[in-house]
Amino acid sequence: MTYRVITVSREFGSGGRSVAKELAKRLQINYYDRELVNELAKRSGFGTQFIEEHGDYVASSHSWLFDFSYMGVGSGRSVSDELYLCQRTLIQELAEQEPCVIVGRCADYILRDRTDVLRVFIHASNAFRQERIVTMYGERDEEPSKRLRDSDKRRQAYYKYYTDRNWGEAKNYHICLDTSVIGIDESAALLEGLIHHSS
Amino acid sequence: MTYRVITVSREFGSGGRSVAKELAKRLQINYYDRELVNELAKRSGFGTQFIEEHGDYVASSHSWLFDFSYMGVGSGRSVSDELYLCQRTLIQELAEQEPCVIVGRCADYILRDRTDVLRVFIHASNAFRQERIVTMYGERDEEPSKRLRDSDKRRQAYYKYYTDRNWGEAKNYHICLDTSVIGIDESAALLEGLIHHSS
Repeated sequence: MTYRVITVSREFGSGGRSVAKELAKRLQINYYDRELVNELAKRSGFGTQFIEEHGDYVASSHSWLFDFSYMGVGSGRSVSDELYLCQRTLIQELAEQEPCVIVGRCADYILRDRTDVLRVFIHASNAFRQERIVTMYGERDEEPSKRLRDSDKRRQAYYKYYTDRNWGEAKNYHICLDTSVIGIDESAALLEGLIHHSS
Repeated sequence: MTYRVITVSREFGSGGRSVAKELAKRLQINYYDRELVNELAKRSGFGTQFIEEHGDYVASSHSWLFDFSYMGVGSGRSVSDELYLCQRTLIQELAEQEPCVIVGRCADYILRDRTDVLRVFIHASNAFRQERIVTMYGERDEEPSKRLRDSDKRRQAYYKYYTDRNWGEAKNYHICLDTSVIGIDESAALLEGLIHHSS
């Protein structure tokens, strides 16, 4: 099988974004993550900051309530639903348009009916993730363990709401890798090997 | 990291046993699956048939009740618990004794504190598994879909009971592979590459 699109779902702090970026570089195809934000802002009318905060998970327990209860004027849908629908269309268009790597945003689920998509899930031990978020994003008032817990909960909730699937279940992916054991560059290399072997 | 032991957990019909066997052959190390049964029979006093039926999951809804309620004479433990404890000791001894591949039997959980174990989970689409169980084990009165459903339920229940973890959650493994997409031999080759690369 030849994979046209690789979707990379990842736990916060697992290095999944780095794996995806490195993989795209090795395969010489485009990588879409924050790159989607500007296009989404243009299409949806939402601000880039709102999209960055809400495009992959609900930002906090406060805005969770806001997201799912507020109805956009005229549409009958919540703002979160509006953003999701806009993302879905964009991701479907991208998959049609060009080979690429897409990070997060339920792309695995959105493209589930395509047979040319490799679905990847990247996770890591909590110790690895805690160290990594402090190195990458700096210290915060909140403990790293709490930051991880909150992020996991939000991603789980977002994923469940839009896909009715459980986040991190192996069956939803073709390959799942633990970067705290396998390594970030090694994971990208392993995926590259798998993709080259299959084409 | 050098992996001394590889544990392979697998869905019924996914070809996980074949992946494990092929991997052991490629690595030129021993493979333990049904090979454990005779040793367990000798140690536990249970018959080989009982062990084959109960060593990895509860055999049926009837014996499920039997397994968990019947108390072995003098021990205060159920027969299922006795068998599990015996398996646990044997698996811990094996890991200490020699590099090997161990299939199923909660070996991933039993050896969770060792840092030289690669934990693998093998799964596949239902269509792939249904076709495979008919090819491998023949037709039965029950539909293949029902045989899979029953087996999944029993493995989930067994794993949950002895590990308090959810079966098939990516976080419990270092690498999870879908053989219906990646292939059985290709999965073994990929794992071999990963193990060689890390040593």
